[in-house]
Amino acid sequence: MRKVSGIIPYLPTPVDAEGRILAEPLHALSAHLAGCGVSGICVMGSVGEFPYLTEAQKLELAREAVSAGRAAGLDVVAGVSGFSARQMIEQATAFAGLGVDAIVLMVEQYFPLSAEMLASVIRSISRAVPDTEVILYSNPKYMHYSYPLQLFDLIADCPNVDGYKDASGNTGFLLSISGRYGSRYRIFSASAHIPLFVFELGGVGWMAGPACIIPRSAVRLFSLAGEGRIDEAMALQRKMWGINAAFARYDLASCIKGVLRVQGFDFGDPIPPLMPLARAEAERIAGLAMSLEQGGAS
Amino acid sequence: MRKVSGIIPYLPTPVDAEGRILAEPLHALSAHLAGCGVSGICVMGSVGEFPYLTEAQKLELAREAVSAGRAAGLDVVAGVSGFSARQMIEQATAFAGLGVDAIVLMVEQYFPLSAEMLASVIRSISRAVPDTEVILYSNPKYMHYSYPLQLFDLIADCPNVDGYKDASGNTGFLLSISGRYGSRYRIFSASAHIPLFVFELGGVGWMAGPACIIPRSAVRLFSLAGEGRIDEAMALQRKMWGINAAFARYDLASCIKGVLRVQGFDFGDPIPPLMPLARAEAERIAGLAMSLEQGGAS
Amino acid sequence: MRKVSGIIPYLPTPVDAEGRILAEPLHALSAHLAGCGVSGICVMGSVGEFPYLTEAQKLELAREAVSAGRAAGLDVVAGVSGFSARQMIEQATAFAGLGVDAIVLMVEQYFPLSAEMLASVIRSISRAVPDTEVILYSNPKYMHYSYPLQLFDLIADCPNVDGYKDASGNTGFLLSISGRYGSRYRIFSASAHIPLFVFELGGVGWMAGPACIIPRSAVRLFSLAGEGRIDEAMALQRKMWGINAAFARYDLASCIKGVLRVQGFDFGDPIPPLMPLARAEAERIAGLAMSLEQGGAS
Amino acid sequence: MRKVSGIIPYLPTPVDAEGRILAEPLHALSAHLAGCGVSGICVMGSVGEFPYLTEAQKLELAREAVSAGRAAGLDVVAGVSGFSARQMIEQATAFAGLGVDAIVLMVEQYFPLSAEMLASVIRSISRAVPDTEVILYSNPKYMHYSYPLQLFDLIADCPNVDGYKDASGNTGFLLSISGRYGSRYRIFSASAHIPLFVFELGGVGWMAGPACIIPRSAVRLFSLAGEGRIDEAMALQRKMWGINAAFARYDLASCIKGVLRVQGFDFGDPIPPLMPLARAEAERIAGLAMSLEQGGAS
Repeated sequence: MRKVSGIIPYLPTPVDAEGRILAEPLHALSAHLAGCGVSGICVMGSVGEFPYLTEAQKLELAREAVSAGRAAGLDVVAGVSGFSARQMIEQATAFAGLGVDAIVLMVEQYFPLSAEMLASVIRSISRAVPDTEVILYSNPKYMHYSYPLQLFDLIADCPNVDGYKDASGNTGFLLSISGRYGSRYRIFSASAHIPLFVFELGGVGWMAGPACIIPRSAVRLFSLAGEGRIDEAMALQRKMWGINAAFARYDLASCIKGVLRVQGFDFGDPIPPLMPLARAEAERIAGLAMSLEQGGAS
Repeated sequence: MRKVSGIIPYLPTPVDAEGRILAEPLHALSAHLAGCGVSGICVMGSVGEFPYLTEAQKLELAREAVSAGRAAGLDVVAGVSGFSARQMIEQATAFAGLGVDAIVLMVEQYFPLSAEMLASVIRSISRAVPDTEVILYSNPKYMHYSYPLQLFDLIADCPNVDGYKDASGNTGFLLSISGRYGSRYRIFSASAHIPLFVFELGGVGWMAGPACIIPRSAVRLFSLAGEGRIDEAMALQRKMWGINAAFARYDLASCIKGVLRVQGFDFGDPIPPLMPLARAEAERIAGLAMSLEQGGAS
Repeated sequence: MRKVSGIIPYLPTPVDAEGRILAEPLHALSAHLAGCGVSGICVMGSVGEFPYLTEAQKLELAREAVSAGRAAGLDVVAGVSGFSARQMIEQATAFAGLGVDAIVLMVEQYFPLSAEMLASVIRSISRAVPDTEVILYSNPKYMHYSYPLQLFDLIADCPNVDGYKDASGNTGFLLSISGRYGSRYRIFSASAHIPLFVFELGGVGWMAGPACIIPRSAVRLFSLAGEGRIDEAMALQRKMWGINAAFARYDLASCIKGVLRVQGFDFGDPIPPLMPLARAEAERIAGLAMSLEQGGAS
Repeated sequence: MRKVSGIIPYLPTPVDAEGRILAEPLHALSAHLAGCGVSGICVMGSVGEFPYLTEAQKLELAREAVSAGRAAGLDVVAGVSGFSARQMIEQATAFAGLGVDAIVLMVEQYFPLSAEMLASVIRSISRAVPDTEVILYSNPKYMHYSYPLQLFDLIADCPNVDGYKDASGNTGFLLSISGRYGSRYRIFSASAHIPLFVFELGGVGWMAGPACIIPRSAVRLFSLAGEGRIDEAMALQRKMWGINAAFARYDLASCIKGVLRVQGFDFGDPIPPLMPLARAEAERIAGLAMSLEQGGAS
């Protein structure tokens, strides 16, 4: 089974006002990111405005992402999300059929689900795509729940569920996972985390929106950490955190679409009800990003 | 424009293990409820397990509900829900085309939406079904947000958005709405509220799951309140609250499907990941309901 | 054992900038409130800025309140609060010795306490003042916890703990208490509640800050409810709710001290870090109060 | 002005069942900890059960802590806490007069305080003890609020307020503080944090309960981090996290008093309503601690 790792930027969804998926900027950005050294792309995460996509758009986006990723030599990860196992099984099966390298699984909750209920949902999806890596993801800020530690016991019988992406910012939980399960679960950093610390804990990658606009810095941070050059990594991480702070004031999708447009990649406006970032603010953040990328690559 | 009011039980979704909507129990229960004096039925609310239904199932359910409601002489209300305006407009338009008398609108949030964003979403749906009453609904327990008071200012230009169903249990908010807007917004009680108090505040109805299994008591409470027989109403409300407490321990859909089965209406098991109520517990609650219904009708 | 009931305004603490308790305005306001028909006064509640008082100030305030209450023919209730049983036992014993008619007990939590731990603390205080009525109080908004229902089982062996004042706004919890325990616990409304509904549920009184500045309306609401004149009571309650909304924008102590000063009772500035209400705003709210009092008494 | 740093264990309060402060175990433990290489002791933190101490006990404890610290050659830090500025000024002044080297300031909130109100309280305490280092502390888990970033701007004029101890577990906030203010605020790790990461961020010390029972490991972690031996530090940190997980299941004071008793330091039972840890569990955790200390010192 193929396993993804390294820097995998979360892409916003390239879409026009009529809802058509835009292939061109997706290919162009993928080629650019590959040139910066990232190892994959991820579509239909939170940055990808997934709650506002129809099932048909999701399929089309997965198809184009696989095409763009193949052309650029990048792994392709697709977000699978929904309230019902049935809906998520359909997405996962279709995405696997289209050739994605891994899925990031976001189980949404309406009625609160026990660890046993969550495990049952996850297991049914795992079995539907036995040859595809499944990376669990929950985002307490938006999804209003966290995985309980014992969930990871309950799904130990799902060999392809071997990744965990954490957006809680709770580094201690990652240390608990890694202490209890060793390398059974491969850990990825998300935007809320300080990725350097996740790398130090043995994290295998970073999947997050900011990597779209500061790909060279993200790649360099990962590689410095891998070489044990912690002082240099820390200095770079400190600079990168400023971008994070700029992002925290907006929703990620609007912010990244705005900055990408300044950088020459027009992914369209964010999908309503999200609203576009003001041009001046997009330029300000793009300036921070450029200065970081130039310094980070030096 | 037709407006709904009175006791409108929230129905669970009648569905078999393969996901087929079951027409027969829906017709049978509707006829039974009509005989008990309710004024309508509502499908695809929280009790209706809406998060686990496909769009195709929703259409089929709306169609059958209109058919069953018409046959029984009842109003038909359908829940419209989703993260994106587009998805909710499609549902609302389709349901209105099928002849539902009103929709209950549940705007789900992933990224938090400002009052202005919420208003924009609600307005676009309102305009798509100008001849259909739209009743706003949020359920903080499951949806993790509440409508801000100023939202009701922002949507004042949507004449068909004229109802508000509150599941916060916060009676003070209802008093604020009614104090600020008079009769502009018609208020409905939900399960979390003590409906008698909502009726005293001028509430025009009660839409909630328990009314499925104690319809006579619900109708009687509404009518006692309407006649100003507050002492009798309070005595009845006290007895009814015991049922509420029994329900609070389970998810509503599982509980009501279990009790309906004991009462002879087999709506199938709750949709996974929800789990069926144990038969003994269903019988215990059905016993409470029967005793209440017999006393309440005396 | 004496038991308090009826309208019992929560008083802010009359104190000068040097921290001296001011007897004069306390006596004057008590006499005024008695003339308006209230049945008691309560000091050292949330409105009474209790967290900012020293133990010595608390004693002095209790002494003066007993004196002012006696002179005015009013019951005197004193708030007892703290993290440790020891501190609360000392306060309760001292206040009982000074002759207060009841205490309102506010157990603060630093480390979360189980129902058993809470019961043990409450029992030890109850036993220290066996001849004084103890009214339990928690305020989730400020104290960050609520009493679990089973606590009321655990303290059933404390005969003098017979009152419960609820500031959760959760009317359903009161109905559960009253359904489960009948008249074992005497229920009082607080500011967050719509007192009319608490009276309809059998509530025996209202202890809250607003009653300081609209005492006639509060007394009239209680008496209309007691006579079963629900329509008139509801009309009055609607008008009173407007004052509540005005209050919700400020901390209660600052708001009530500001309005009392306009009404001629100078209780000093709120204790720092609380800050005085702007005079213009105090006058605006005092105007609302006066208009309500004149209408309410008509 | 003396400034504290390094490993500063948080001590529980040595007290007998009658509430008398116990000097002997305090002296014995201080001597033991000094032998293990810690740089100070801290009394009256959360581990020190501060909410349950009287003001008289606090004074006595500060006096004994200074005596024990001096004898052992350790810095002495004392917690200052309360709702009112007045109460905290009294404590801070008294503790400074007794010779403590620094205070950890815990401003409790009843009514929520704005950043400006918090700054005003902190400033008044700062001015009362101008020659004593003041370290800010908030513990969102127990105190239900966090310091807003802009507070650190508002108190920039308080030169002796130069430390910040964070118990949020939010490492990103520390990176923001350090990015914005450089070395203006000296950062300390708390129990909720992974101290290695705080040291990497430039943190100057660790003040936390577990350091009482695994002092050698704590000292070694700090020194490995200081020498840049990150791999060894990470290996040690991983082992230490297991102790943290054991602690998270109990309140810290009960846990540490239980383990200290096994280790030969009898600090008495935890102050009610806290309850003693079962002996078997205390022995189990003491075993973990011993194994860690022996390995950590190798």
